[in-house]
Amino acid sequence: MSIDNSVNGTSSTTVLNSPFLKTIVRQIRGQDTYGVYRNWSDDLILKPYVVTKQKKREISIEGEVDPITQARIMAFYQAVAACIEQETGLISHVVVDLSHEGFGWILVFSGRLLLVARTVRDAHRFGFDSLEKVAEEGAKLIEKGIDLAKSFPEVGKL
Amino acid sequence: MSIDNSVNGTSSTTVLNSPFLKTIVRQIRGQDTYGVYRNWSDDLILKPYVVTKQKKREISIEGEVDPITQARIMAFYQAVAACIEQETGLISHVVVDLSHEGFGWILVFSGRLLLVARTVRDAHRFGFDSLEKVAEEGAKLIEKGIDLAKSFPEVGKL
Repeated sequence: MSIDNSVNGTSSTTVLNSPFLKTIVRQIRGQDTYGVYRNWSDDLILKPYVVTKQKKREISIEGEVDPITQARIMAFYQAVAACIEQETGLISHVVVDLSHEGFGWILVFSGRLLLVARTVRDAHRFGFDSLEKVAEEGAKLIEKGIDLAKSFPEVGKL
Repeated sequence: MSIDNSVNGTSSTTVLNSPFLKTIVRQIRGQDTYGVYRNWSDDLILKPYVVTKQKKREISIEGEVDPITQARIMAFYQAVAACIEQETGLISHVVVDLSHEGFGWILVFSGRLLLVARTVRDAHRFGFDSLEKVAEEGAKLIEKGIDLAKSFPEVGKL
């Protein structure tokens, strides 16, 4: 177990085995100006990313996506960007453009290359069936992004 | 003078000479569901894009960018996208992501290629010294976008 985990409580093997999940945790802790999460375990920090189908049905998609959900989406894609950067050295920007109805675009780009380009719907309900699914989805996006960055390095560095 | 102009009032030579300005007008007329602009000349429709330095100082940059200014920014970049499309055949999306403080990103992309990528500040004050400047700025963005599309066609078509 790393020092980080012994300080912040235990983490499940899912988190320990996923560089992506660890990066999300690092993103969130890094922005934790007021120390809210200081004594939380990694699992507890990641818990809001798990939203069961049942739970999704209960979340209203009326009105604005609430700021906490928006921050959660942002941290997810910033972690994708950070993992791509670690592999390729490309520094990227994350742009999340959600309409009041919870749909829109999520873009991660470096230079003139879009590493991630997704449309979203029902952003209010952003979440996954399990922590494993979060890790899987992140890994898929990272792999695709690294692929693109390696295929078109001259565009990524523009 | 084209049929369009004889119906909608006269246009200055600036508008007549700029395919970009004509495209902005077409964008705005195309979204004019209630016929507000039906009897307006092209010049009148374009007038809000001209914001003098004096005028800019008078516009507060507090709070949200108002929806009319947001629509004006959108039409500007949609016209850029339409002009690039006409030349390259690439269909693109426009994403405008403004924070409540009036700064953010404006992105035009096709496939995985960013044709336009700009950071904005003080979006509340979006505007140009003159109609000629609007035309010039648009032409510059279009040229750069076409250049990129032609340099990296495989990325634009992804």
